[in-house]
Order: sequence, then structure tokens, then C-alpha cells
Amino acid sequence: MSTSLRTAADTVIAASLRAVLPDTAVRRALQNFCPRGRVVLVAAGKAAWQMAHTAVAVLGSVDGGIVITKYGHVGGDIPGVICREAGHPVPDENGFAATRQALDLVHGLTADDTVLFLLSGGGSALFEKPLLSGAELADITRQLLACGADIVEMNTIRKRLSAVKGGRFALACAPAQVFAVVLSDVLGDPLDMIASGPAAADRSTCAQAVAIAEKYRLHLSPAAQALLRQETPKALSNVTTQITGSVRELCAAAADACRAQGYEPLILTDRLNCEAREAGRFLGSIARTHAGQSKKCAFIAGGETVVHLTGHGLGGRNQEIALAAAPALDGLDGCCVFSVGSDGTDGPTDAAGGYADGATFAALHTVGYDVDKTLAENDAYHALQAVGGLIKTGPTGTNVNDVAVVLTD
Amino acid sequence: MSTSLRTAADTVIAASLRAVLPDTAVRRALQNFCPRGRVVLVAAGKAAWQMAHTAVAVLGSVDGGIVITKYGHVGGDIPGVICREAGHPVPDENGFAATRQALDLVHGLTADDTVLFLLSGGGSALFEKPLLSGAELADITRQLLACGADIVEMNTIRKRLSAVKGGRFALACAPAQVFAVVLSDVLGDPLDMIASGPAAADRSTCAQAVAIAEKYRLHLSPAAQALLRQETPKALSNVTTQITGSVRELCAAAADACRAQGYEPLILTDRLNCEAREAGRFLGSIARTHAGQSKKCAFIAGGETVVHLTGHGLGGRNQEIALAAAPALDGLDGCCVFSVGSDGTDGPTDAAGGYADGATFAALHTVGYDVDKTLAENDAYHALQAVGGLIKTGPTGTNVNDVAVVLTD
Repeated sequence: MSTSLRTAADTVIAASLRAVLPDTAVRRALQNFCPRGRVVLVAAGKAAWQMAHTAVAVLGSVDGGIVITKYGHVGGDIPGVICREAGHPVPDENGFAATRQALDLVHGLTADDTVLFLLSGGGSALFEKPLLSGAELADITRQLLACGADIVEMNTIRKRLSAVKGGRFALACAPAQVFAVVLSDVLGDPLDMIASGPAAADRSTCAQAVAIAEKYRLHLSPAAQALLRQETPKALSNVTTQITGSVRELCAAAADACRAQGYEPLILTDRLNCEAREAGRFLGSIARTHAGQSKKCAFIAGGETVVHLTGHGLGGRNQEIALAAAPALDGLDGCCVFSVGSDGTDGPTDAAGGYADGATFAALHTVGYDVDKTLAENDAYHALQAVGGLIKTGPTGTNVNDVAVVLTD
Repeated sequence: MSTSLRTAADTVIAASLRAVLPDTAVRRALQNFCPRGRVVLVAAGKAAWQMAHTAVAVLGSVDGGIVITKYGHVGGDIPGVICREAGHPVPDENGFAATRQALDLVHGLTADDTVLFLLSGGGSALFEKPLLSGAELADITRQLLACGADIVEMNTIRKRLSAVKGGRFALACAPAQVFAVVLSDVLGDPLDMIASGPAAADRSTCAQAVAIAEKYRLHLSPAAQALLRQETPKALSNVTTQITGSVRELCAAAADACRAQGYEPLILTDRLNCEAREAGRFLGSIARTHAGQSKKCAFIAGGETVVHLTGHGLGGRNQEIALAAAPALDGLDGCCVFSVGSDGTDGPTDAAGGYADGATFAALHTVGYDVDKTLAENDAYHALQAVGGLIKTGPTGTNVNDVAVVLTD
């Protein structure tokens, strides 16, 4: 393994992950935040506490606020802000109660006031005020799952059974302005999908909701049937949204870090979603083609690849990308492929991802690992571990998908 | 489907394929050919007749020559050149006899003379003078296949059982100069692999050959054992090689054609070898990310992807690339992904490849095709046929792998 290349890779990884930490991401988003009147903070999601903590530090103070996050995710007191923990991924009464508290906080604000709404992954379960009983909601969810409804169909129904989803929270804040800071964990940043879009105009319609209910012959109470016919907002004039800490920023930070080390960066995609090992092969073939040319280049691919389990080994999608790239890199000087998950935990392992360069394939061979067989066993962790190819960062406290990088010299 | 985009795609495809036709490729390679004395032409492979026909047209005349090609592949007389047809992929006596004739033609040349050696795919079977009986050769090949030897191991053995492979044909031409024009169909153009390298220095050694024989406990006659100990040339001072019509030139021609239409081209790789459908998803995600940016870009990936059959439909790797890219392209203006095989026949179909743009996914949905299910059935042909997404060029007479292109606007 080339220590200088590995150092370059580690530098790029550290800089990329730093850029999408909730703290950094919230600070960046708040550069555009210029409130006039009172500021009420509502933070929901797995990163809610960190986002709120940073926001209050940046703003100095807020005029009341609430954090609703997962059990065990409150890191301490925040001045002027109530911190609540609740159930995730299955919503519970604590979440419902905290959401009612949030609605109380934004009730009665004027057009001069602002709701600073900090949203992160997990918000769909944590931030919820159902318009039906918990039992009826659970029953409808069960029916949708049983009949094979897709995620868009599920959301089209569920938004109408909620007092906050599908843009309704922003309506509840009116006439106050809503400044929404969204830490995106969904590729392409579809705002109405992230946490079911409490502050995003809804693209789905009542007609679609009714059609889905008929298509799957859902058994619904008269109350539920009536709710499906209540339209969600199609435009929201009181909302400004800043998407931050997304995979796009992860890629941009990786590009900046590569450039700082003398590599000319190109972001190939921030929407990668193919099979991990095949992405690794593709990236390896890019390295092989560009190796030994006059220019130092960096090719960056962000997204979230998938792994179809065919074996019983240990690994993760980022480790499979690096391992699968190793054969194409074999013998190349100055080239490497690495990939990391922004949450710092790739698959069920203590590694954030994997690294391979021109020496990896031979090193694997020496210790008895065959790349194809190892991938078939989904055992990238042990193979990379044996050749020093694991990347370990520890948990980062954020999750904005993955980034893979090819460096060529 | 966007007709202007499809027209752009068809223009790029036509220009790319034209650049790697044997005629064009041989003309380009002969720009650097300046013979002094007599010129003897030896052409072997599936494109041998076309290559020889073009060479004689360019040079005006040659001082004798021979074409050894597959049955049915001689297109007419060539002045001063003997045309022979022989067995492929299984070598036969006609091939052996024609190869002996070629060796006779180059025998007795002086250092002022030149052998113009035109090599194309299939040359390994067509151009052969075995040093053992046909029966013994067939038996050794059977043993190697039965014990699971890989292609490198097979070639290491077989080169030593041949009078022309592994650089030995070039030795037989000495002291004459050999000007070799190689139409490459192997990714990365490894000269000692293309047709087993009759005019290429051999990287394998006798020690490796003996080790392979011992590893697999091959049953060999004393004659065969002695041949394994006869070294192949490790350097050839009388050979000049021009690789032409390779996937690299296919990609370069695609880049030129894209530039001519206002797209800024980037050749991602000329070594693509991953699963076709995953390459398509990767390329689709590149299109999605770069769509709607200020610059018109073309991303080019050459190589030869693979298809693992999981169904019983009709299709080919290039058609799977296009079909798999369709979901990511859905709704995008000015973007498309297309892929073609340079031989004009993609899989067992009459199409050269496939095309998808922002309208394809919806069109497939309308006619009842689900992309994932169709790929699982390996039925890309019928799906693309239903939406006008097939690319048809007819057989081109060459085979230098495939090229896939993403156009974004």
C-alpha cells in the first residue's frame, strides 16, 4: 500500500465528512438566516439535538423552542429549548405529545416572527400528530404493506392522516415565516419525501389518495375516508428552505479536498444507486484508463449503492466498492479507489469504508483472498482488514449517504 | 423520444463505428508505414481479407502475400495475394496448411524487406502451425479445460506448442522487418494475448509452463515436455506494431463526434467490464446529476460489459445498459444514454444496441414494461423495440468491443 496515497485519501475523507457534520451544515445554512421578530426553534429527527445546539450557539438565543429526537440522542441542555426523546422508527406517544407541544409553540405567532425548523432523517416517525387513533393508523399501515403498496403510495395516504406532514406544519406556523434547514438523507433531495415534508408543498393529490384506497380495497373508517379527501397545500408562501449537509455537499467537499491536494476533481454523480461491487468495477476501470496520464485527476461519485447478499461474511457497500476496484488497479502507481459512508459505519461493521490501490490486489493474493470469491461471500471486511484497507472514522453523527473517490496520477 | 437527441446519438454512433472499420483503421495505421525493399503481406484473422484488401489498395501493390480468414470471409481476389479460408473457432488442416504457406513466403527475406502482418480477432485459431500432432494438441487442451486452468495458463502452455505463437512468427521473418497492424478486440490491448501474439515478445516463461504442467499433473508425451522447455522470444528487435481500430479509437472517435455536435466530451474509461445493467444505472446517475447544467457534456465509456442471464428473454449487453439507465433519465430534457457494439450485433439480436432518454421510462410504463422485471427476464430487446429504443446498424465487419455514451444538456 502506498502510504502517501493513503494519507491523501484519509485527508480527503476527513475533510468531506467534516463538511456534512450537522454542526458545520447548520452553520453554513444559517449564513442566509436574517430573522426580524421572535424566533421559535423546532427541531425534529435523529440529528435534531445537534442541529438545535449549533443553531442556538450561532444565534445567541431563541424565543422558545423544542427538540424532538430519538431515545438517547439528547446531549444536554440547550438554553430556552425543551428537549424531548421519542420512539423511532416506530412512533410513540412521547413523539405525539412533543409534536403537540411544538404546534402549541408556533401557535399565535405573527407575520414578523420566524419558526426555525431543523429537520433531519427519522423526522417522519418522530414528528407526527396523527388525525386518527394510533390503532387505526397502525391498521392502515399494515393493510398498505400487505397489499404491496410502494413508498410513494404509502406517503400519499399517510400525509392525509397527519396534522403536520405534507406541508401542514408550515400551514400551522402561518402567518409566521418558516426557515427550514433540512439535513438531507434522501438522494436527489425530494423535499416532500424527507420526513414526509412537514414544511414542503405536497405534490400528491386527494384524487390519487382515493384511487390508491380503491386500488388496494383498503378498509377505512368514515373518518379516514373523509381525511383522504382533505387536500394538502400545493404551495407555501411562508417557507424558505435550505438543504444542507446533503450528499451533494459531501461530494463538493470531497472535490475541494482533492483540489487542495493537487487533483483536478470531477463529480461524476451524486445519485449513485447501483450495485456496490459493480460501481467498484466501474470506478476501477476509470482509474485504469486515466492512470499514467499527465494530469492528476479525482473522480467523485456520491450516493448510496446497494448490496445484494449472496454470502454470510462481514462487510458493507463502501468496502465492497473498494474491494471490487482492486483488480483493475493492480500494479498501477499513484492510483487508488476509496469509499466511505458519511455516518462512519459501513454495514454492520466498525469501519466507515474501504481503500484499494495498485498494491492491494497482490497483497490480497499473498494472504489468500480471491476478490470474486470474497465478494460472493460478502466478506470485504476481513479481506480489506488483512491488507490494511479498512477506513475507520468512528460514528460521525450524521448520515448523508456515501462518497467514493478515484485518484489517478 | 426526442428526435433531435436521437439524431445526435445516431450521428455519434455512425461516426464512431466508421472510425474502427478495418478499412479506416488500416488506412490510419499505414500512414506510418515506409517500407524500403520488398513487401510481403500476411493477414490472419476474421477481418484479414478486408485489412489486406485495403492495404493493397493503399500501397498499390505487394511482392506476394496471403490472407487466412474464416470460411465465407473472402470477399474477392486481391492482386498478388493468395486468399485462404480455414476453421474458426476450431483450427483445421486448411489453417495449418495456409500458415505453412505464410512461413514459406517470409522465408529467405533480407533485412531490407518487410513483412506487413495484419492481425485481427480469431487469429489464434486461423494462424497456427502446431509442433505436435492435432490429436495430442486437442488432448492437452482438453486436460487444461478439465482441470480449470485460466486463460493465461492455457496460453502459457499453448504458445510453446506452436511454431508461430508467442513471437515465433516474427522470429521466422527475421532478418526482415515486421510491420504489424493489430486490430485489437481485447480490452487494454495486451499484444501477447491478441491471437496469442505471433509478432509480440512473450511475457510468459518456460519455468511457468513447467510449473503449470506440474500443478495440474498434465499427461504429456516426452516431445510435449521438451517443447515446454523451449523458450519464446522475450524481445523482438525487428518488429514495429501499430494497434488500430481498438476500443480506444472507438472512444476517441465518439469523443470527436460528440464535440462536433457541441458536447464537451470526457472519456471515462476504455476498460469497462462490469455487469451491463449496473453500468447503465451508473451512467443514468451521471446523466441525472449533470442534467440542466449550463454545459453540454458527453461522458463516454468503452469496453465490454457482461450480462449474467437470469431470464429467457431477448437482448444484449448494450441494450441492457440503455434500458437500465431509463429510470434515472425519467423526465429529463436533453439527456440520453446509448450504447452500441462495434460489430453491429448486440447479443443474439439484429440490433447493435439501445437508446434511452427522458421519455423512455414513461413510454415503457405506458406499454406495460417494468424495467426491473424486464432486466430480470433479460428481455431488453422487446422493451426497447416497443418504445423505438433499438439501434440498428447491420453487421459492421469489425469487433472492437462496445461504446456507451451519456449526453447531457
